[in-house]
Amino acid sequence: MTMTNNYEEIRQAAYKHNMQLPQLGLVLFTFGNVSVADHAAGVFAIKPSGVAYNDLTPDKMVIVDFEGVTVEGDLRPSSDTKTHAVLYKHWPKIGAIVHTHSTYATAWAQSLRGIPIYGTTHADHLTMDIPCAPPMADEMIAGNYEYETGFQILNHFEEHQLNYEEVEMILVGSHAPFTWGKTAEKAVYNSAVLEYVAKMATLTEQINPDAPRLKDALIKKHFERKHGPDSYYGQ
Amino acid sequence: MTMTNNYEEIRQAAYKHNMQLPQLGLVLFTFGNVSVADHAAGVFAIKPSGVAYNDLTPDKMVIVDFEGVTVEGDLRPSSDTKTHAVLYKHWPKIGAIVHTHSTYATAWAQSLRGIPIYGTTHADHLTMDIPCAPPMADEMIAGNYEYETGFQILNHFEEHQLNYEEVEMILVGSHAPFTWGKTAEKAVYNSAVLEYVAKMATLTEQINPDAPRLKDALIKKHFERKHGPDSYYGQ
Amino acid sequence: MTMTNNYEEIRQAAYKHNMQLPQLGLVLFTFGNVSVADHAAGVFAIKPSGVAYNDLTPDKMVIVDFEGVTVEGDLRPSSDTKTHAVLYKHWPKIGAIVHTHSTYATAWAQSLRGIPIYGTTHADHLTMDIPCAPPMADEMIAGNYEYETGFQILNHFEEHQLNYEEVEMILVGSHAPFTWGKTAEKAVYNSAVLEYVAKMATLTEQINPDAPRLKDALIKKHFERKHGPDSYYGQ
Amino acid sequence: MTMTNNYEEIRQAAYKHNMQLPQLGLVLFTFGNVSVADHAAGVFAIKPSGVAYNDLTPDKMVIVDFEGVTVEGDLRPSSDTKTHAVLYKHWPKIGAIVHTHSTYATAWAQSLRGIPIYGTTHADHLTMDIPCAPPMADEMIAGNYEYETGFQILNHFEEHQLNYEEVEMILVGSHAPFTWGKTAEKAVYNSAVLEYVAKMATLTEQINPDAPRLKDALIKKHFERKHGPDSYYGQ
Repeated sequence: MTMTNNYEEIRQAAYKHNMQLPQLGLVLFTFGNVSVADHAAGVFAIKPSGVAYNDLTPDKMVIVDFEGVTVEGDLRPSSDTKTHAVLYKHWPKIGAIVHTHSTYATAWAQSLRGIPIYGTTHADHLTMDIPCAPPMADEMIAGNYEYETGFQILNHFEEHQLNYEEVEMILVGSHAPFTWGKTAEKAVYNSAVLEYVAKMATLTEQINPDAPRLKDALIKKHFERKHGPDSYYGQ
Repeated sequence: MTMTNNYEEIRQAAYKHNMQLPQLGLVLFTFGNVSVADHAAGVFAIKPSGVAYNDLTPDKMVIVDFEGVTVEGDLRPSSDTKTHAVLYKHWPKIGAIVHTHSTYATAWAQSLRGIPIYGTTHADHLTMDIPCAPPMADEMIAGNYEYETGFQILNHFEEHQLNYEEVEMILVGSHAPFTWGKTAEKAVYNSAVLEYVAKMATLTEQINPDAPRLKDALIKKHFERKHGPDSYYGQ
Repeated sequence: MTMTNNYEEIRQAAYKHNMQLPQLGLVLFTFGNVSVADHAAGVFAIKPSGVAYNDLTPDKMVIVDFEGVTVEGDLRPSSDTKTHAVLYKHWPKIGAIVHTHSTYATAWAQSLRGIPIYGTTHADHLTMDIPCAPPMADEMIAGNYEYETGFQILNHFEEHQLNYEEVEMILVGSHAPFTWGKTAEKAVYNSAVLEYVAKMATLTEQINPDAPRLKDALIKKHFERKHGPDSYYGQ
Repeated sequence: MTMTNNYEEIRQAAYKHNMQLPQLGLVLFTFGNVSVADHAAGVFAIKPSGVAYNDLTPDKMVIVDFEGVTVEGDLRPSSDTKTHAVLYKHWPKIGAIVHTHSTYATAWAQSLRGIPIYGTTHADHLTMDIPCAPPMADEMIAGNYEYETGFQILNHFEEHQLNYEEVEMILVGSHAPFTWGKTAEKAVYNSAVLEYVAKMATLTEQINPDAPRLKDALIKKHFERKHGPDSYYGQ
């Protein structure tokens, strides 16, 4: 049994970044959660289930291991905890995961469509459509559902040869988005970007139902402005 | 004649939860009302008619019995009072009712369509489409309109074999939504959830006009995560 | 020349209600104006042209007579002043006029469509579609444009046998809405209601392109709840 | 090497007007930038790349010449700097440039459509459709991209015989809008107006897919109310 102080850092980070979700307009009531991992310790801190954001404190964050078992904390962790655990276990380089039901991204998930790459705002962050994993088979839903949701995401990335370090977001069909990143800042940032891109893609199709996908040269240019050895965006 | 102090609790609760409607963005001006019932006393406290939210105080809540007759209070109760009375009289387990003209939910009511269950956000709260009662026959409208609105809701539930403890919301066709719950917190929560689900369903149909209803296995799973003996959402 | 103090009341009222437009989200920058009339004195106070809301003071309101001539004030009055003047001159029972370019109402004006009466929110305020006057003939536009805009509104009411005391709003095709009322409170209220109804009508047609107009019995009932001898809404 | 104090004025102006972008709801995170030029000195002050608005100070603005070379400042300038430089070099009468990814304007850019002039709000600011430059050829994108973006804008204006003093905004196809003006106030104002007009045009087409362009007489009238020798809008 580990002492509390060991997890102070991820607890504080999980608290701080959970609180950003309502500030960024990404959640209604408790419809979302952020977790922050300590891969060396094999644990992550996650929002307790069903607790209002206004009632959160760092102490209420629950410490869970990568099998989804609570290690420390008096409250029950988020009902989505096992999805987080599966992703951390298989994707060693992600430091945080965010789940929301933000309106536009969730509407795309409900539509069972990936989000086409229509513009440079999208290409600044990833070079392909935002993926949408199909709903799971019934027996997986009836079984260990949240655990299987994690595998549904992993399998979709594998089948489509996606790299989780390059594509830091997915829509789970009929459900809602998950995003991640090396840091909690980046994972929350990705959730807000996804919602913004989802809204603009919705409007783009309304304005021009025949709008083309962004041309390859622009996809390449904009992504490489922000990422890789020749990037020149930021400081 | 009962003394004021008897109703202090429901008066305070009605005041507090009426004030949440503008905070949640669910009302413009006076387009909404919350009531809170005391079934033992056979009364409920409800917003006075046409009074701006900023001018409300707990004292201004009107106490009305389940026949719709004012028991205590100087102001005229909400014009929708008789609808509330009918529901409390026939549904003994609801502690509060909320009526709003929130934009998306009202647009569905004006469209005379129930809201299809497209995703897990919806299924977290109810397992079927959000019902829409048709507009009433002309003679009922011309008669005791608000009283008949209550019966229109009751009849729609009976005809479609809906359980008011499971389905805590309805759209009244051409009019607007009503929600309820065991507590005032839950009834107001349901109004905000309904508006959120209504917005996402609107967007879903715009993004994919052929979007399918949520598959049964997911409906069952998500509802049972939050409700019933095996629920594991929340604390 | 009249002394300033004579107009203090309408100046204060015009200031106060102009300031409500940005608070209600009805204007961007200076895209709107409120005037308040004193029919006995034959003048109205109106926002100066192109002055930011943050820079307004009661002193800056301009006093104008019903021919559109400035009676008092150092600043140039709103460019829409002559439209206001024409309406006050011909409609003796309106105490205030509001003009905005609020997004949904203006989009309907740009669409050259009146807003169909789809629900009870609309019927609570008027019993028919919200009228849309067609754009003027070219020679009227090139001439005394704002003056002719006033007559375009008057003529549309006359042609369609509308009563300005019952229908307190109009869309000027290709342009934007005007609303009015006995008091400044009511005129501003009408602008916000119009925008709200316009948004819900837009959504209604998106959700159900075949949504029917509200049935007559409901139109009659809802309007009479709020207006006329048998009204029972409000205090 | 020039001393810092020389550029204090444009640095302060650039800081002040960059901070208006989030206040006006035109940017998410760092998705936008404002620059302010001193044509006599042949330089402009621009936002540093990828720095959050909350972390900006006047000192952090970067001073760049019209070839896009940094003259003063410790931080890397906005990745869009060369686009700004090209415009300042060729258009001597613009004092400031604004780039955002505001949602509606960007959706039109992604749709590869100019924004039709549907109403007087649009005509108050320009007399034609808001132009949309097509995406560049692949070799220009792969080359000196931001520099070529500037020429793409210049060329589009030349080809369509547009005057940059009359049309102070453009959509860069697949990307996002740029606006400018004699002053920083005007350039930021134009960005907000563009977003507003873009939203109303989107709604107009949803409400009436056959909505006509604004008639010429109204275009002329509204533009001349605000611009040219006979203007009578403002003080």
